[in-house]
Amino acid sequence: MGFSFLILMLTIATAVASSIDNQIYLLMPHSGSSGHKHSDLNCLSWRLAVETDNLQHWTTVPEACIDYVGHYMLGKQYRQDCDFVAAEAYNYAKGLNLTGDGKDIWVFDIDETTLSNLPYYASDNVAFGAKPYNSTAFNKWVNEATAPAIPASLKLYKKLIKLGIKIVFLTGTRETVREPRAKNLKAVGYTEWEKLILKDNNFHDNSVVYKSGKRKELEEAGYRIRGNMGDQWSDLIGSNPGDRTFKLPDPMYYVG
Amino acid sequence: MGFSFLILMLTIATAVASSIDNQIYLLMPHSGSSGHKHSDLNCLSWRLAVETDNLQHWTTVPEACIDYVGHYMLGKQYRQDCDFVAAEAYNYAKGLNLTGDGKDIWVFDIDETTLSNLPYYASDNVAFGAKPYNSTAFNKWVNEATAPAIPASLKLYKKLIKLGIKIVFLTGTRETVREPRAKNLKAVGYTEWEKLILKDNNFHDNSVVYKSGKRKELEEAGYRIRGNMGDQWSDLIGSNPGDRTFKLPDPMYYVG
Repeated sequence: MGFSFLILMLTIATAVASSIDNQIYLLMPHSGSSGHKHSDLNCLSWRLAVETDNLQHWTTVPEACIDYVGHYMLGKQYRQDCDFVAAEAYNYAKGLNLTGDGKDIWVFDIDETTLSNLPYYASDNVAFGAKPYNSTAFNKWVNEATAPAIPASLKLYKKLIKLGIKIVFLTGTRETVREPRAKNLKAVGYTEWEKLILKDNNFHDNSVVYKSGKRKELEEAGYRIRGNMGDQWSDLIGSNPGDRTFKLPDPMYYVG
Repeated sequence: MGFSFLILMLTIATAVASSIDNQIYLLMPHSGSSGHKHSDLNCLSWRLAVETDNLQHWTTVPEACIDYVGHYMLGKQYRQDCDFVAAEAYNYAKGLNLTGDGKDIWVFDIDETTLSNLPYYASDNVAFGAKPYNSTAFNKWVNEATAPAIPASLKLYKKLIKLGIKIVFLTGTRETVREPRAKNLKAVGYTEWEKLILKDNNFHDNSVVYKSGKRKELEEAGYRIRGNMGDQWSDLIGSNPGDRTFKLPDPMYYVG
């Protein structure tokens, strides 16, 4: 874990360090795209509101918080926050009464839950989520299948498998990218799973409806969702949420 | 608002400043009651896990985090975090289509939502929640009816009333303290309400069951819960949560 995270950090540091510095300090004194000043925005309060689902349906990271979000995501705190949640998830999982019939499952979201898109999000054109979402560019990145693992989640994943819990990946990315997603997961250490569920290319309802429906199908097929982990509240609310949910931090984007 | 918060800060500062300093720095190097060292605990990660409901059924603030929690609660950040949530709640409320029939309500929890127990929690015997909950001492404090308002919530309360929304206070404190609670609310500016619901003296199920039941009764009586605000997730989950919920910060205690 430590090594792969080090590699991630080094990769990011090498690739984007100078551009981040330029990006952040160039953008900091600006006002928003509408000319609205953000100088009174408290970025800690903004992030807490995001993480507690008090702030919903936001589109981009406020320009005044690019610096804050960038440093958080690239620094130790993000990693430690993920470690804490994963440790708590394992504390819970190891206390479960497991039947050993192969029907106890753990649902993992993928993006910012098991795989990190930080190398993509740290680029100038994305600015940690301060630039509007660009589906073409993001899909190109996904197809490269080079996202690193989130170390805390990979460690948890391995421990859950040792406990006898089966893994289900449930992602809002589309069936068209099944191959690169599977390749990416395997390349970084997520070598096995019970199911890898991607969104049908012609499904167009929101994430809560999509994920609730898929979890319902899993339970109807006899699976017991003992844990459910995601970076978005839309991964964790709605119907059939699972016995317990775990919210990983993500101040870079909102999926409703 | 500013003035009442200033009074709160001055009251606390005068009453407990020296004892806090002693308390914090005396306790900081200690290990936990079981002898377990907490020195590797990241208090920011701990607090984020608390606020996102990743950490559940915890009993006391870790000794290693008394300093962190104390400074957070007494400092600017707690106030600004509350301001941000209240502002977002008002943004939502002012966009509502209200009928004017007196059935649109907003449910407020009381402790750490509309009233602040910070003067009590800052005392040596409580240490911002690091000492085990003492119901006798807390009830004595409640009976004094001297808790200050949380400025952000009082401001929101007044604005909601101006919009035509009726207020319902729903608290886990008992019917026996109805009089001091009402007196306390009125004294700090919460001068009117549709209902003040306290817990029956012989109700012994948990908070989620209690609050869900009361919200169900409200909806069965024809009320529409347009918003629901609390400092505990148990205020906001379960059945009949309301159209939208708002979570205020509280790193001092957990009510399940």
